[in-house]
Amino acid sequence: MPSNQDQSAVTVLGLGPMGRALAGAFLDAGLTTTVWNRTPGRDRELVARGAVGARSPEEAVAASGVVVVCVVNYDASDAVLRREAVASALKGRTVVNLTADTPERARDTARWAAEHGVGYLDGAIMTPTTTMGTPDGVFLHSGPEALYKRSRPVLAALGGTHTHLGEDVGRAAAYDIALLDIFWTAMSGYAHALAVARAEGVSARELAPFARGIGAILPPIFEETAAEVADGRFGGDDNPLTSAVSSMAHIVHTSEAHGIDAGVMRAAEGMVRRAVGLGHGADGFARLPEVLGRHLAGA
Amino acid sequence: MPSNQDQSAVTVLGLGPMGRALAGAFLDAGLTTTVWNRTPGRDRELVARGAVGARSPEEAVAASGVVVVCVVNYDASDAVLRREAVASALKGRTVVNLTADTPERARDTARWAAEHGVGYLDGAIMTPTTTMGTPDGVFLHSGPEALYKRSRPVLAALGGTHTHLGEDVGRAAAYDIALLDIFWTAMSGYAHALAVARAEGVSARELAPFARGIGAILPPIFEETAAEVADGRFGGDDNPLTSAVSSMAHIVHTSEAHGIDAGVMRAAEGMVRRAVGLGHGADGFARLPEVLGRHLAGA
Repeated sequence: MPSNQDQSAVTVLGLGPMGRALAGAFLDAGLTTTVWNRTPGRDRELVARGAVGARSPEEAVAASGVVVVCVVNYDASDAVLRREAVASALKGRTVVNLTADTPERARDTARWAAEHGVGYLDGAIMTPTTTMGTPDGVFLHSGPEALYKRSRPVLAALGGTHTHLGEDVGRAAAYDIALLDIFWTAMSGYAHALAVARAEGVSARELAPFARGIGAILPPIFEETAAEVADGRFGGDDNPLTSAVSSMAHIVHTSEAHGIDAGVMRAAEGMVRRAVGLGHGADGFARLPEVLGRHLAGA
Repeated sequence: MPSNQDQSAVTVLGLGPMGRALAGAFLDAGLTTTVWNRTPGRDRELVARGAVGARSPEEAVAASGVVVVCVVNYDASDAVLRREAVASALKGRTVVNLTADTPERARDTARWAAEHGVGYLDGAIMTPTTTMGTPDGVFLHSGPEALYKRSRPVLAALGGTHTHLGEDVGRAAAYDIALLDIFWTAMSGYAHALAVARAEGVSARELAPFARGIGAILPPIFEETAAEVADGRFGGDDNPLTSAVSSMAHIVHTSEAHGIDAGVMRAAEGMVRRAVGLGHGADGFARLPEVLGRHLAGA
């Protein structure tokens, strides 16, 4: 199986914006790049740049030792991979699945892959399409370390920072889920803040420099909070949960006084109030993960 | 009324952690600092450092031309200020109310102050107690500009950056509400992310450097989103709302599979799904403030 060892060839399944960016980065790095997409025609520009357009997924995966998958979710990914013809063609090769979904889906497909003699890694891309092939890309990987090391030269063609998080193939998705949890929640809060500000006559441009300032204090606070959680230090010296709920109630009130839905802040306030109700009012936000996961003690 | 012009004296009402930090900074700057707190005894350390401990709020406000108020909320602030004896003593002086509450409460108390011949500014402190008297403090002010200019030398003793946001006295609270909306929502997302990560076997220390990375991408994204909102550009080229809801659903699913309440993300997902349902699935997060405040068009 020479193709299995070949590190100058790669296949990309899925040619959405990210899949196209991945294939483009591989082409730029000089790899023989075979591409396939369920909906035809998406490969046109890539083929013009030198990619090989496969007519079927089985033909596509047969062309390379490393097969990178990037589709909308694991339903889509399983629909492509978990077919007899594709499984046969994949035997002895390595799938690097960069499709975002839950840890359990990654583990489930990894089990299927093991049963079919297919090497399997799951990964997550933490940066936008424009960072593919640049030093700014951030990639998380998980699954068998030997397999990761063997695929590393092909992945390196994507540029950026690659981190292998461990042998549990669900680990990349677990990090992805947690990090996107932070991102989408923060973005939801920001969108709501812009709506409330506007209702108060404060424009997006006026709020922006101050919002930037709030954004800038988050990374050190995230780090300090993680250290508190790790050490079991929950004290909210400067920011007790009782102060937080008072502040959150003002936000809900102002939002709703303008008829602006405050559902996200109401849910956040409810989460903090539950911790206060359990006797943790003098603690800080570091108490919340423990309260949320209390029934999982030892997890 | 010499005290009205005197910029070497200041009164601080409210000696919680922030009030004590404010009074300490005034003392360090060499101002004659008179202090009062509803619960007695809180002034002990400040008096030992040279502060004048007043026996009543009316005695406290009579001592200085500028009276800084910092209590838990406007209910507490009104309970101190809106009494006949205090109103009389305040006549001709300036209140700088750094108490956090809603814009409408600030406007309401400003009306009361105007009726009683009291100068009134409302402000917000955006940084922790430890930044008082240092270059790192961030203060927002609103109310009559002439009054702000006259109080500026006293406020300057607090160090940091002071911004006058406009004549509408509710403006500082409006910014405060919007910025805390971002902060508390982001912190709620982070607390939840730490809980989900832990359930997946990822410790706070392991997640922290990546969480820091997510935090670091927020400020430029906040700025770009504000620019999109300002320009009415809603296109979510790289991050359409349809992708966001798919990602948010994975987070909810993973959280609830571990029995971890996902109320905040469920609310955020619901907000985004409403925008998708209104036909904005191809747009980005910049669409959300407009959808949330659509009934306020022209606001």
